[in-house]
Amino acid sequence: MRAIDPLDHTITVEAGCVLAEVQKAAEQVDRLFPLSLGAEGSCQIGGNLSTNAGGIAVLRYGNMRELTLGIEAVLPDGQVLDALRTLRKDNTGYDLKQLFIGAEGTLGIITAATLKLFPRPREVETAFLGLGRVEDVMALFARARGISGDQLTAFELIPRLGLEMAMRHVPAVTEPLTAPQPWYALLEVSSSQSNSGLRRSLEEFLSEALAGGLLRDGVVATSTAQARDLWRIREAMVEGQKYEGGSIKHDVSVPVSRVADFINCATAAVTAKLPGIRPLAFGHVGDGNIHFNLSQPPSADAKVFLARRAEFSHIVHDLARGLNGSISAEHGIGRLKREDLPRYKSPLELALMRRLKQALDPDELMNPGKILPP
Amino acid sequence: MRAIDPLDHTITVEAGCVLAEVQKAAEQVDRLFPLSLGAEGSCQIGGNLSTNAGGIAVLRYGNMRELTLGIEAVLPDGQVLDALRTLRKDNTGYDLKQLFIGAEGTLGIITAATLKLFPRPREVETAFLGLGRVEDVMALFARARGISGDQLTAFELIPRLGLEMAMRHVPAVTEPLTAPQPWYALLEVSSSQSNSGLRRSLEEFLSEALAGGLLRDGVVATSTAQARDLWRIREAMVEGQKYEGGSIKHDVSVPVSRVADFINCATAAVTAKLPGIRPLAFGHVGDGNIHFNLSQPPSADAKVFLARRAEFSHIVHDLARGLNGSISAEHGIGRLKREDLPRYKSPLELALMRRLKQALDPDELMNPGKILPP
Repeated sequence: MRAIDPLDHTITVEAGCVLAEVQKAAEQVDRLFPLSLGAEGSCQIGGNLSTNAGGIAVLRYGNMRELTLGIEAVLPDGQVLDALRTLRKDNTGYDLKQLFIGAEGTLGIITAATLKLFPRPREVETAFLGLGRVEDVMALFARARGISGDQLTAFELIPRLGLEMAMRHVPAVTEPLTAPQPWYALLEVSSSQSNSGLRRSLEEFLSEALAGGLLRDGVVATSTAQARDLWRIREAMVEGQKYEGGSIKHDVSVPVSRVADFINCATAAVTAKLPGIRPLAFGHVGDGNIHFNLSQPPSADAKVFLARRAEFSHIVHDLARGLNGSISAEHGIGRLKREDLPRYKSPLELALMRRLKQALDPDELMNPGKILPP
Repeated sequence: MRAIDPLDHTITVEAGCVLAEVQKAAEQVDRLFPLSLGAEGSCQIGGNLSTNAGGIAVLRYGNMRELTLGIEAVLPDGQVLDALRTLRKDNTGYDLKQLFIGAEGTLGIITAATLKLFPRPREVETAFLGLGRVEDVMALFARARGISGDQLTAFELIPRLGLEMAMRHVPAVTEPLTAPQPWYALLEVSSSQSNSGLRRSLEEFLSEALAGGLLRDGVVATSTAQARDLWRIREAMVEGQKYEGGSIKHDVSVPVSRVADFINCATAAVTAKLPGIRPLAFGHVGDGNIHFNLSQPPSADAKVFLARRAEFSHIVHDLARGLNGSISAEHGIGRLKREDLPRYKSPLELALMRRLKQALDPDELMNPGKILPP
């Protein structure tokens, strides 16, 4: 870490800094660095920048791109671009840092960054809610956002299958509600004021949703430990899926209003192709971001299933595209998706990307084989 | 306007759409489009995008860049880039829209954009506060931000001279507090919840600041009309200055913690050069953005004064640079500042800007003579 300034709400760190360390440093000066994702204990800021990382707090605070004020980067010719500004506003020509953020290291290597900090929430409330249909989850989201506005800091979708996988394979994960429900929403609201009445208004909101039949059941954490346990389900689901045989993962996004359409259609489409396939649709649906992971049928052969990756990915990605969505919401393109890119980007977009690559890295020294299709 | 979707919180408009019309369209579907600035009744979205416009709500909602999800642009060769996405998250290669936002039309012409909408605030409170020193204004800002966090949506600095110019030249602007004060802060807090206790907590906050001696006097608007009148002072100051002879304007930014340093040093420096000069330091100090406008001494000759523009601008800009600031926070470079750019940007930054220009507009057809130094 190079510098932290609570008054300016900025922190300057080197690329090798682990995300959790940045969060901790901010906390120590009573500030929040909001980027939060499963790998935060090991992932590094340089990687977060190069992939424009997302995670659970994008809904309120934005992606890594929005959290970045300045960067330092090494260019292909060895020159160091020092654009480590701490300014909130700077309109002096092209915003060069934007080139390197999310470019997956193909235009230069980010070596340090100045990031935004925020006032630390004084109150946080977490609820785990059971609902009948994914449409209901999205209707609940729309209402919650309308009423609580900025206070809604996370809204995650979890399917019953995900909870089951978590309970099956991860110790200490237990049924959170009285009865099983088809879909769950994990919701977090926070306030930077104490005595904000946050809990009361959350409970009122949920009571109304219960009375109106939108919500079937739910629990609001009464302690930080309980809140942690509820969030643990979210992570345990991802862990649990590893023990369920082969899985084909997708990280799509669609407009928020099309999330239910996407999940319903994609589920039907992959099931039609392979009865018994187990789609696990979860993720940051408040941002329209769905991790649509397909677990093999329990009795299937993993290798045979995984050999059909391209077939299933085309179905899922074509559907996302048809709903004006993206085939990579937060995981980037890398090597895995680059050959598919021409299916989902216009020739002009690809041509412009190549022109940028050519302008900044004419000898193709930086991270060759990533992003740009061969 | 092409489309508006309250559920997705998005609006798609053509470049010629006037900002106030976009605000109005959002309001009609119970949403907020937060970009707000003096010229909103006449400025167009295309210009807002090309200059990465700022204004009074950047503190909470960000610049135009942060408010943009997708764009459509015409390239120098006539091809149309259709990147009008409505997605919150899309990491599929280089984020091409970033190239055109804030590029002042030098890389292509933005013809349409998809913009973010937000939940509309249910409660808004506006206060006009009198303080002794600019350091006190910034201390009050730091406290206000720490306590109210997201609810602080605007924080503007106004000097006594600005209020006087407003009262002198603009009808119906009157002394807002019981006695004159050297500095004023115009503060706005808002909440997307009704019955949020916003007013009570603002009043508590201000009482404490009064009791502690940080604040000298203040008024909280009791009606929308009174709030409008307080904001009117902000605009009337800019209008009033036009009648005070020649003025040399600056739009700098510095780290928030250096705002008081900048204003004090710059005031001393220009006064040393020309006794009687009247610096008008105002603006979005919550973002570190100061409009440092210099009115001529009352008795001076306007032409003689204006002939010294470069001399004064170098003093002001060098000081901003010395505090790790920027010579253009939100107004851009255009023609006026482009020859000065090499004083404040590194050769590498300028070289990269030229490489981008070359990559996208090799024949220099787009808005020639802007941004890039000759």
